[in-house]
Amino acid sequence: MARIEVEFFSNALVRPVTFRCVLPNDPRDGIPAEETPWNSRPMKAVFSLPGYTGGAEWGDEMLAAKYNTAIISVYGENAFYVDNASPSGKYARFIGEEMVNYVRKTFGLAMKPEDTYITGISMGGYGAIRTALAHPEVFGKVGAESSALIIHSIAHMKPGEDNGMSNYAYYNYLFGDLETIEESSANPEVLIREILREGKKMPEIYTCCGTEDFLIEPNRAFDRFLTETGVPHVYEEGPGGHDVVFWNEFTPRIMKWFFE
Amino acid sequence: MARIEVEFFSNALVRPVTFRCVLPNDPRDGIPAEETPWNSRPMKAVFSLPGYTGGAEWGDEMLAAKYNTAIISVYGENAFYVDNASPSGKYARFIGEEMVNYVRKTFGLAMKPEDTYITGISMGGYGAIRTALAHPEVFGKVGAESSALIIHSIAHMKPGEDNGMSNYAYYNYLFGDLETIEESSANPEVLIREILREGKKMPEIYTCCGTEDFLIEPNRAFDRFLTETGVPHVYEEGPGGHDVVFWNEFTPRIMKWFFE
Amino acid sequence: MARIEVEFFSNALVRPVTFRCVLPNDPRDGIPAEETPWNSRPMKAVFSLPGYTGGAEWGDEMLAAKYNTAIISVYGENAFYVDNASPSGKYARFIGEEMVNYVRKTFGLAMKPEDTYITGISMGGYGAIRTALAHPEVFGKVGAESSALIIHSIAHMKPGEDNGMSNYAYYNYLFGDLETIEESSANPEVLIREILREGKKMPEIYTCCGTEDFLIEPNRAFDRFLTETGVPHVYEEGPGGHDVVFWNEFTPRIMKWFFE
Amino acid sequence: MARIEVEFFSNALVRPVTFRCVLPNDPRDGIPAEETPWNSRPMKAVFSLPGYTGGAEWGDEMLAAKYNTAIISVYGENAFYVDNASPSGKYARFIGEEMVNYVRKTFGLAMKPEDTYITGISMGGYGAIRTALAHPEVFGKVGAESSALIIHSIAHMKPGEDNGMSNYAYYNYLFGDLETIEESSANPEVLIREILREGKKMPEIYTCCGTEDFLIEPNRAFDRFLTETGVPHVYEEGPGGHDVVFWNEFTPRIMKWFFE
Repeated sequence: MARIEVEFFSNALVRPVTFRCVLPNDPRDGIPAEETPWNSRPMKAVFSLPGYTGGAEWGDEMLAAKYNTAIISVYGENAFYVDNASPSGKYARFIGEEMVNYVRKTFGLAMKPEDTYITGISMGGYGAIRTALAHPEVFGKVGAESSALIIHSIAHMKPGEDNGMSNYAYYNYLFGDLETIEESSANPEVLIREILREGKKMPEIYTCCGTEDFLIEPNRAFDRFLTETGVPHVYEEGPGGHDVVFWNEFTPRIMKWFFE
Repeated sequence: MARIEVEFFSNALVRPVTFRCVLPNDPRDGIPAEETPWNSRPMKAVFSLPGYTGGAEWGDEMLAAKYNTAIISVYGENAFYVDNASPSGKYARFIGEEMVNYVRKTFGLAMKPEDTYITGISMGGYGAIRTALAHPEVFGKVGAESSALIIHSIAHMKPGEDNGMSNYAYYNYLFGDLETIEESSANPEVLIREILREGKKMPEIYTCCGTEDFLIEPNRAFDRFLTETGVPHVYEEGPGGHDVVFWNEFTPRIMKWFFE
Repeated sequence: MARIEVEFFSNALVRPVTFRCVLPNDPRDGIPAEETPWNSRPMKAVFSLPGYTGGAEWGDEMLAAKYNTAIISVYGENAFYVDNASPSGKYARFIGEEMVNYVRKTFGLAMKPEDTYITGISMGGYGAIRTALAHPEVFGKVGAESSALIIHSIAHMKPGEDNGMSNYAYYNYLFGDLETIEESSANPEVLIREILREGKKMPEIYTCCGTEDFLIEPNRAFDRFLTETGVPHVYEEGPGGHDVVFWNEFTPRIMKWFFE
Repeated sequence: MARIEVEFFSNALVRPVTFRCVLPNDPRDGIPAEETPWNSRPMKAVFSLPGYTGGAEWGDEMLAAKYNTAIISVYGENAFYVDNASPSGKYARFIGEEMVNYVRKTFGLAMKPEDTYITGISMGGYGAIRTALAHPEVFGKVGAESSALIIHSIAHMKPGEDNGMSNYAYYNYLFGDLETIEESSANPEVLIREILREGKKMPEIYTCCGTEDFLIEPNRAFDRFLTETGVPHVYEEGPGGHDVVFWNEFTPRIMKWFFE
């Protein structure tokens, strides 16, 4: 399993950025690849977005090998994968366009939606959902865990307020006007309605959340929204909180849902 | 010359950060160290701050070896080394306290001001000056190149304005109220007056700028301010602009000024 | 959990080498360290040696955090951690002296045997045992998995022969005269007799092996040897072969044996 | 300029190996690429081999950018880029086949000889020459500095002898029978005669050496050999020894010879 670390200049962030990739393209002599449905098709690419407080992780090598897929993980930098108010903070453009284009031209991967999936946990789950929906022509599937679907909860936040994770100034800088955020492209529901309205192909959607997770309600609400708007999707719950125990169980389930 | 890359969890930025260090602690057998004034004293530490658009660079190995000093370079992330409005954007605390403490406890370096210097270019020059002045008990010397001493120029900027490098929203998020920024700790002059008033030990200060640099005026103004307030310092100008030709000449001069 | 990668010049190998270290010295604000026996003592250091075909791995972060220990992993380069016939292949000196000294002077860790343990798998298990026994004044404990205790099996190998893993030329270059190898310091039994004879303090020894492992016999033989020579030790067997399933179970057991 | 570090499993060395690559594929918005002959053709690839005591270096970013070429540097591990006597030491296969194939399939570079050059210093100069001549269908050009063309000098070395750099055991392990080494494929002259005999396309050859270099005589002898056998080539000498002063001057000359 090759491990690749890349530092390149991001025009969206106006500075060098680093990502990490595991790439199953170094088979060992004398160990014939198993005959699997995955080894007989070209390599896929999974973009993986960390949560708040998280960094770029080396993807799971066993899963990358099994499913013959690159796993590409970026640094999330607590920036919620949206274009903030600064000209040097275009994280949505970074993850949804620049990273994909860079991976395409450097590695020849992720060329088509059916080869390009996106996943993430917590802030990264929100980022994965939003990014896939903003670029349905790029990402064929999104699998999101314990997603920080916080748009409704930060809407109408007032200057000086703090919600325990961060404060008004932060959310306002990242998301813009919090009075109208629910109508903005930061809201996955807005993007879904847009895809439906424009008749674009909807990415396949999987979400999951632990029943003890403090984010269970917005995840259930998103499931209801998808059902009500007639968007096919899979939503799963399981015992557990907002922690690695849950993610250790559901990350392989997402990979299975992507590939099996 | 050892090259060390460290990823650790920053509480000031609430996520993992990476820094790079060259460390002259792997002498070769059979090559006796030159007898120099630097080889007979303990190793020093130079913190190096990149400019806007820059990333963590591996420090100059020849200079690190010559002067028996670690050179430790962080990612600047276009954040101007100040505490921004977010609880996860405390870059001033990060560079001035957390990095120093982490280097101290991990490597046993930078224990005293006479062993601890700071340098930087452009945004990093501003950062080096501001950080040294905010922590005169930590940093014994600061050497700043082509410093982005922009406080006076962004003061009184209005919402919607853009100064070519960035916009009001960015500066306001980073620096707070731009109407009163000149009276804040973002302004090195304020910090200098504070050190003088409180009778603290002033860090030794070296600044330089190219005569064709678009930042020449604020650098001259800072030189005048230091002179007028009676702060001993060195200010040098040379032909050249805001570019690597100038920095390739003056970075070794700063190291010479630090150590000779 | 800090992750540190170091490239430094090895005089034993006459070229730069790289090692990887996880270091639990970046606690998060607001998350008080558990009150454990390990958090109230200074940090320990575990050197980890990979097997044949293996590289430097990032140590297990959960175990490093739990036991408040650095885990430092080198590249084994299929060199069996012995001094080979070349002046640039002194791997025994590298791992037993140079690495320890470098870690001591760079990080202030591994200063005493009671703070310095060594572990490894397969070729690395052999390396861990041999290194600890060659430097009982450095390493307080050794925990070895599925150890490639191959000395007796390669003794008397003849030019041109191949044992399935490698050939006479390789073993001869690494270990010297294969006719007398059993009397050399490559043989852990020789080192143990030497420690006993010289009255040095014996490192504490733990070994284990899977019952289906092709190396089970030499591991049992080493257990018998230790018993017969009166060396206190722990030897464990468990179901399993020479594979990650076994190691995933026994690596935490070794860490438990080191620290609990 | 992207910097990429790759760790992948080498079947020739039967373990993970690391290489470093600078890749000029991250242009900055708003900075139009200069119109040069190099920017209007596809990216080239230069493989760079370090010398004895050297490691993988990040290639010169200015030269990589100017000439629109990747520079890919491996670790030489003091192994002279030949297949040694061990089944896990096939460095010739590693550099001449495996690395090229891996770069081809991972990055889509180095697909044809006219896009694939090789260079090196000292041991790496020898390695570059030998590798290019062993694979004239892969490498279009070789540029070698201060090359350790040592075959004639180590021929007929006897057991126990040492030539100041290394000993008989080392050379014998690496190169095989030193009595017949001059007739083996370790000798670039043998490879050249083979290319001529078989009517293959000869790689373009550039070599250089400092007049004070201890390797000046074998480099002059190789120049004479090339002239006598009618192989077009460029050979340059300049003042200087076996040191960075010389290489800092001639590395850009080689890149110029490659591309201008």
